Parts: sequence; structure tokens; C-alpha cells
Amino acid sequence: MKHKPKSKSLSNKKYVIGIDLGGTTVTAIITNKSGKIIRETRFLTHGLKGPSFVIKNIADNVKKLVSDSGLTMKHIWRAGMGSPGPLDSKKGIIINAVNLPGWKNIKLKKTLEKELGTGVGVDNDANCAAYGEKWMGAAKNCDDVVALTLGTGVGGGIIIGGRLIRGTNCNAAEIGHMSLNPDGITCKCGAKGCFEQYASASAIANSARRKIKSGRKSKITEMVKGNLNKIDSKVVYEALMNKDKVAQETWDEFIKYLGAGIANVLNCINPEVVVIGGGVINAGDKLFRPLNRAVKSQAFDAVYGAAKIVPAKLGQKAGAIGAAGLVIFEGEYYGL
Amino acid sequence: MKHKPKSKSLSNKKYVIGIDLGGTTVTAIITNKSGKIIRETRFLTHGLKGPSFVIKNIADNVKKLVSDSGLTMKHIWRAGMGSPGPLDSKKGIIINAVNLPGWKNIKLKKTLEKELGTGVGVDNDANCAAYGEKWMGAAKNCDDVVALTLGTGVGGGIIIGGRLIRGTNCNAAEIGHMSLNPDGITCKCGAKGCFEQYASASAIANSARRKIKSGRKSKITEMVKGNLNKIDSKVVYEALMNKDKVAQETWDEFIKYLGAGIANVLNCINPEVVVIGGGVINAGDKLFRPLNRAVKSQAFDAVYGAAKIVPAKLGQKAGAIGAAGLVIFEGEYYGL
Repeated sequence: MKHKPKSKSLSNKKYVIGIDLGGTTVTAIITNKSGKIIRETRFLTHGLKGPSFVIKNIADNVKKLVSDSGLTMKHIWRAGMGSPGPLDSKKGIIINAVNLPGWKNIKLKKTLEKELGTGVGVDNDANCAAYGEKWMGAAKNCDDVVALTLGTGVGGGIIIGGRLIRGTNCNAAEIGHMSLNPDGITCKCGAKGCFEQYASASAIANSARRKIKSGRKSKITEMVKGNLNKIDSKVVYEALMNKDKVAQETWDEFIKYLGAGIANVLNCINPEVVVIGGGVINAGDKLFRPLNRAVKSQAFDAVYGAAKIVPAKLGQKAGAIGAAGLVIFEGEYYGL
Repeated sequence: MKHKPKSKSLSNKKYVIGIDLGGTTVTAIITNKSGKIIRETRFLTHGLKGPSFVIKNIADNVKKLVSDSGLTMKHIWRAGMGSPGPLDSKKGIIINAVNLPGWKNIKLKKTLEKELGTGVGVDNDANCAAYGEKWMGAAKNCDDVVALTLGTGVGGGIIIGGRLIRGTNCNAAEIGHMSLNPDGITCKCGAKGCFEQYASASAIANSARRKIKSGRKSKITEMVKGNLNKIDSKVVYEALMNKDKVAQETWDEFIKYLGAGIANVLNCINPEVVVIGGGVINAGDKLFRPLNRAVKSQAFDAVYGAAKIVPAKLGQKAGAIGAAGLVIFEGEYYGL
């Protein structure tokens, strides 16, 4: 049997597109197969204009990104995309993206493949961010990784033996909805005591707000000029730096729950690294020192000893980089 | 290049030994490579006599089991063994077995290989039980499995993509030590609010005992003739059947926490089946009906919908069967 030589066009396909679809903005990159970013762009999602517009707009911006790089789509091997879920990553269908109006059962993979003329893989945005940190960021060269992004909620991604854990119907790693108290705060998911009700950036703000509303005096009230809706995690952190007692209590509680949640994941998965992302990591030692103590007190010694807890390195680009990496290394999963 | 034919002796090695080392008894089986049990035995561990005696005694009993089956050790391909941990399953070293005096850094694999003259793989007992249910029990033909055994503690095993999850230093799946309340009951592991403090068979007994000690009236007191130390989960269940209020509250709390813990694992792992083992599964619908409601209220709909929650099928043999299965299907992990 004769073997055909590799076609020339395939050998030219040296680049991969990575896209991260957010509620407000979209990030897109072109990278080579080693993760070196050639060019990147960020543009508004325009979510209110509906899924057809959003997808067309993404395709147009990606094509422009390619031509701005002095390339054509013929140089593009594959494209990966991170999207809010729940979604079916096998089929590339967005089942429901809560922050994007009209996104129900949207055939994202198929539509984007038609628009771009290249194979597309779609995965959960938090999974992509985790994979990005594993491929090119804070968990480089690690095979057993848990990544958490603390924002409005707590996004999670789990990598075991170098491969993303997706679960039996693509819903694994919803670590933000692990309950830390079955009698606790009701989450918007309907469950009680979800991790993200205690350990997200929003949770920090909500917790301080509750304390002030209950009559506690705090510098925070002054800092937001009495408009408690303006409290965010940054304001709480500034007040903490100014030795505000309410801010300190809020921070301590946040650390306690974040530590307990991470310890739970350690005891279940026994990873070698836990990557923490989100603006709150700018607190540096003020976060990571007490956090390590909190995790140590709740996790098995051997499990705590095996795991480093580190800040994410890739910032807002993690999702796009991970989406590109996933279609490179796990392309067969997406049918590519 | 010439290929040697398989040696005759290898083709005769049709059988595998499975051993489950417990604090009180040892179970050993001979099975063929399809999981058909040829013969089985159960004998006392004699833990107080120390590790050398225990291992020699196991080897002697296994050799007797083999000869009682009309076989010789030449017919045995490999042996698998489940042991309490923590342990290093890669090297087959028991780091510390709390319920077995003197078991610290015991080279179980090496010693047993010498005694038996066959390759041995050693793994965590709860992992073996999970793998047994996946290979021949309640999770047969399932690739994504979580198994929980409710006893003195809560043992856990996680299988993803058909393979056991061991973690970066063999400590994964300590689901019993997932905290359900970082301000909760202090566990013997040192952490607070561990799952097994609320959802083990012991937890049921402890919870009823606390209620009665605090002055609550209950039929349980009469059932144990005033000796509250005699309360166990079985007594509580009997009282529940007799419409005792304290027993009902105890049971409801147990279900609430068991449900929340299972929901947490579902949200993180998204398995297709959760296997529950331990004597408490004899409660049947009285357990599984309210448990399903409790899990549903705490897990994502798509995740709950994808997972069956089923009783274990293999009882006390699960660990030995799983240990045999692991050396058959994951032999390379143990260096076999």
C-alpha cells in the first residue's frame, strides 16, 4: 500500500485560533502550535443583538485578526472557543448561556465552522481557562491540575493525567456549586450553601454589605458615599488595608470558606497544583498566606503537602489560550 | 525478526488472586480474568500480631485457597490487594494503616511477591471496592463512577474514563473528608465538618446519641436498655420503623448531608453512576427515595439527570474483586 505524502496545504496550517466568549467582551488570539501568541484582539460581545449577530461578529473579527497578522485562513489549522454553559462540548452546542440573551440550543461549532472554513472545538469557558494555565501558564508541565476563577461566581476546571475532565454529559468541574453548608445561603442555582456564595469576588462584596446593612459601622460606607450597591471586592480590600474591622471579618470569612472549598477539592482529586484566578489574586501574600493556613487546617497532610496553591498567570487571555490548546491536544474529542 | 511463541506456562496463568485486608478480617478470592469467582475464603486478620505475621498468614491462606481449588501457584497470573491507607500504590508501600498496629512504611507488595512468587499490586481498599463495583457489580459497563461506602467512616473511590483516579501522590477520593461545614463537627482527621461526621453509619449512631444525651425522649433508650454506647445505625433504623421521632430526625439529617455530599461529587465529577455501599443500603427505598430528592435539591439538573444512584451489589467481596480487576486491567500502573 502506498502512502500519500502530506499535502502542502496541511503543512502550511501552522496556526490555531483561540476565542473566549464573555458576557461583555470577546478575546481572540492567533497562536502557533507551541502556544506562542502571534496576535490578539478584544472586542465587545454585543450580546443584546442575539446569537446570530454575535457569532457573525466573532467570525468577522477573527478573519480580520488573521489578515492583520499577514496570514490567510489557509494558514489556520483549527479554532477553539470557550463559551459560558451549560453546553455540549462533544457536539459544540450551547444549551443555555445565562448571561447571553437568546442563547438556547445554539449550534455554535457548526455555524462557526461554516463562517470560518476551519474545524472548531467548543468547550466550557472555565475548562478552557484551566487548560490555558496548564498549557502555558501557572500549571505548565503539571498533569493533575485544579483551576478556580473567582469572579461573579467561582469557575472551575479539573485536569487529570493531562486531560480535561468533562464528565458524562459535559458538566464536570462545577466546583462553584459544591455546597459548604446544606443549610447555608441559597444560590441562584437553587441549592444551598454553594461555594461561590462564600468564596467569589461577589461574595466578598455581599458579605460586607450584609454586615453594614445589619448596622455595623465601617469605613466602607464612607468609601462608597453611602451607596452600598457600589461595594465591590476591591473596596473591601482597600478598607482591609485601612484596618477596617468589618473588612477584616469579611476577608477572614472569605479565606475560611475558600480554604475549605480548596481542601475539599484536594481531598477528592489530590492534584499537584491549584491555580487561583480573578482580580482578587492581586492581594498577593495577603490572600495566599492565610489561604494556605486555611487549606492546611482542612485538608489531609499528604494531600496538602503534594499541592502548590498558586496565582493564575494568563489573566484574561487564559480562556482563549486554553481553547486553542484544547483543539491542538484534544482535537479528536471535538471530532476534529 | 522472529516472534517467540507465548510460553506454555504463561498461557496456563489463567487465574488472579484478589485480597481485601480489613482491620478484623481478610477476604481472598480466586477469579478468572472475566471476573468469575472460582473459590473464596475469609479469615481473621490477627492485626495485633503485627505486620510480618499478618502478611505471612495472608500468604499461607492464599496458597491454601489455591490448592483447595485444585490449582497451583503456577496457574496464578497476578495478585491484587486492597489495604487501608494512606499508602503508595505505585510502590506498594503502606505508609500508615491506622487500624493495624505497627503498619508504618510496610513494603507490602515486595514482601507478598516474595511469599507468593507472583506479581502483586496494592491499592487503597475503598478504591478497590469502587473498581470491583465497576468491573462486576452495580456500575458494570460504566466508565464514570463514584462509589461511597458508609461504615465507620465514608470510603470513596472515583473512576473516570474507566480508570481509577489515584491523584498525584495516591491520596485521591478521600470523599469522606470533604467538609460540609467549616464550622462543623471536628473529625479525627483534624478538619471540621467532614462528610463522614454526618453521613457514615457511625454518624447516624452518634447523632441519635447526642440527641438522647441532651434530654430527648426516644424509644432507642429502651431498645439499648439505657446503655447509649450500644446505639448503632441498625438500632436507629429499627426505631425509625417504629415511628420514633428522634430516629426520624436523625435519619432526615443523615439523608440531608448524604444528599448534599453526593450532590457535591456530582457537580465536580459529573459521573453516570453513584454506588452506595455499607449495611445502611438494606434500608432500600426508605434510603434511596428521600436521598434522590436530597441530591436533586442540591445538584445541577443536568448533572442529577445524568447520574443513577444505586446500591452496591458485591457486599464484602467488592474490595477483593476490585483488587483482582485492577491488576488485570491496570497492571502496568503497579509495574506488573
